[in-house]
Amino acid sequence: MGNSYKDLITRLLEGELRAAARLITLAENDIKTAEEIINSIYKYTGNAYIIGITGAPGSGKSTFISTLVKKYTEQDKKIGIICVDPSSPLTGGALLGDRIRMKQHFSLENVFIRSMANRGQLGGLSRATEDVIKILDANKCDVIIVETVGVGQSEVDIFKSAHSVLVLLVPGLGDDIQTIKAGIMEITDIFVVNKMDLEGADRKVAELVQMLELNMNYKFNSEVLNDDFAKIRKWTPEIVKTNSITGENFDKLLKIIAKHKEFLEHSGVIQNYKRNRIKSETLQILKYKLTEKIEQLFKDSEKIEEYINKVMEKSIDPYSMAELIIELLGINNNV
Amino acid sequence: MGNSYKDLITRLLEGELRAAARLITLAENDIKTAEEIINSIYKYTGNAYIIGITGAPGSGKSTFISTLVKKYTEQDKKIGIICVDPSSPLTGGALLGDRIRMKQHFSLENVFIRSMANRGQLGGLSRATEDVIKILDANKCDVIIVETVGVGQSEVDIFKSAHSVLVLLVPGLGDDIQTIKAGIMEITDIFVVNKMDLEGADRKVAELVQMLELNMNYKFNSEVLNDDFAKIRKWTPEIVKTNSITGENFDKLLKIIAKHKEFLEHSGVIQNYKRNRIKSETLQILKYKLTEKIEQLFKDSEKIEEYINKVMEKSIDPYSMAELIIELLGINNNV
Repeated sequence: MGNSYKDLITRLLEGELRAAARLITLAENDIKTAEEIINSIYKYTGNAYIIGITGAPGSGKSTFISTLVKKYTEQDKKIGIICVDPSSPLTGGALLGDRIRMKQHFSLENVFIRSMANRGQLGGLSRATEDVIKILDANKCDVIIVETVGVGQSEVDIFKSAHSVLVLLVPGLGDDIQTIKAGIMEITDIFVVNKMDLEGADRKVAELVQMLELNMNYKFNSEVLNDDFAKIRKWTPEIVKTNSITGENFDKLLKIIAKHKEFLEHSGVIQNYKRNRIKSETLQILKYKLTEKIEQLFKDSEKIEEYINKVMEKSIDPYSMAELIIELLGINNNV
Repeated sequence: MGNSYKDLITRLLEGELRAAARLITLAENDIKTAEEIINSIYKYTGNAYIIGITGAPGSGKSTFISTLVKKYTEQDKKIGIICVDPSSPLTGGALLGDRIRMKQHFSLENVFIRSMANRGQLGGLSRATEDVIKILDANKCDVIIVETVGVGQSEVDIFKSAHSVLVLLVPGLGDDIQTIKAGIMEITDIFVVNKMDLEGADRKVAELVQMLELNMNYKFNSEVLNDDFAKIRKWTPEIVKTNSITGENFDKLLKIIAKHKEFLEHSGVIQNYKRNRIKSETLQILKYKLTEKIEQLFKDSEKIEEYINKVMEKSIDPYSMAELIIELLGINNNV
């Protein structure tokens, strides 16, 4: 590791936000560097509380997050915000616009904002997001907010790191409950009916209550939850109405988040959650590393050319070629 | 391999369509069986000509394929049709309806139709499609048509096996050219302006000509094409208008397809194409096999639990854990 890194890491651990920004850029550009950075800082992580936030377009996520962050900074908390857009690299611009608007709401000293678009990151956007979370965690952020714009499988992966997952809905938008994909619904800890001043806020709450009752049986019996999402067992999702403009009910929201945090810690669920997070992170890293090895092998190896020739002659088939490569990689068949 | 398989495979190689149907179902349900089947039949494959067809909804794909197939059966060709829907398992019903309508157009003796929806196939839908192509190929289909409904990255993967890729457009549908994603555009060999009786067919052709001229420079210089899509180098995509109801211009279309086939064979491009197809297939199989091994390892291994404990204690980080698992797998670091 170069001297420049060492210096940056020292400054990171002292809490300097600019060092965090610099290290995040380095980690994003090169996975080897990311690995070195995480190696050095991992033992200083694990103190931040991670909040995942998503919601349909129009649910007012930016203003909501601004108000939430303002509340936390009033409590002298240091906040990291990671805005992840898995859908497309092209919307990066619009997202950035939002971020600039958001930034105007608070002093920069205790708030760090980073946008991450899907630029075909090596090893996936959720792995890259994990790295950023750890850097901000080591930077002594008390709360890290991970916001995503979409509502698909990518979000579920990204939210595997979140302690509390918040989903924003708005009154009126008839079928926004349906648009939130099933996978997200099941990992939501707190439903927020934002823009509570609009007509139909109470109806939206009633719809949510009904949906939760319907889903409960399914939820607690679902195979899916046994492992990855053990953390939400026994926790009944809370519902809260908010007004992000006036700040109404944000104290209540903060209390609910604190209650969820306490639940995680006192029920011991947080231990499962930590183990699962380590598992899913390691799996992601592993898939990346193996894919890299295989692609390297396909580029360089004379053996591969030889195998392809054999398949061309039809003395073997692609399945057998895959087996030969597994042998070539030396993978232990009895593990 | 059980006796029942052996018998089925004998009948498959004799050209019995029902044996193909049975083997495809067996292969879809269990990848080990798929592997065994492909092992046995691979040396009898490589004779079918594979045509990939896609197009925007409303471009009349079903009727187009019916007419195309009718033309081929008139030449005593045996045809396999694989309808792939990568977008969602839910549209399976609609797709099937289309297929039933399509089936009414021809005698069943020489035509085989199979719908494949994305049911979370192990190793991916494109790997599963590859298996079906091979089974139909060994079943002595002369032409295999792979139709997909979407226009995204999945189609590009699925079309890696196709000798000729056809994209359907219709007059009037103003921006359907834009909706065809860039990745598909670049692997298209023949553009079909279907429903040529509608107003604006010639304008659509003119738009395509213009687009192709604009793209030519980019296309021939593109890095992307060096490897995976070497087959389209030197081939200038052809454009043809068709009327699927009257059959107008289908003789012309068949000639263009034959011309493209001849181009592939005489230019030697087909050799590159075959090598690339083997590479991408093997990579897909390999990724599946490794993922399976890793997931098995995560379920069974006490070592993994031990590593997770170490990460929990922060004596190692997830990147180091991934390295330890690579060691555990015994993967040769110097390949």
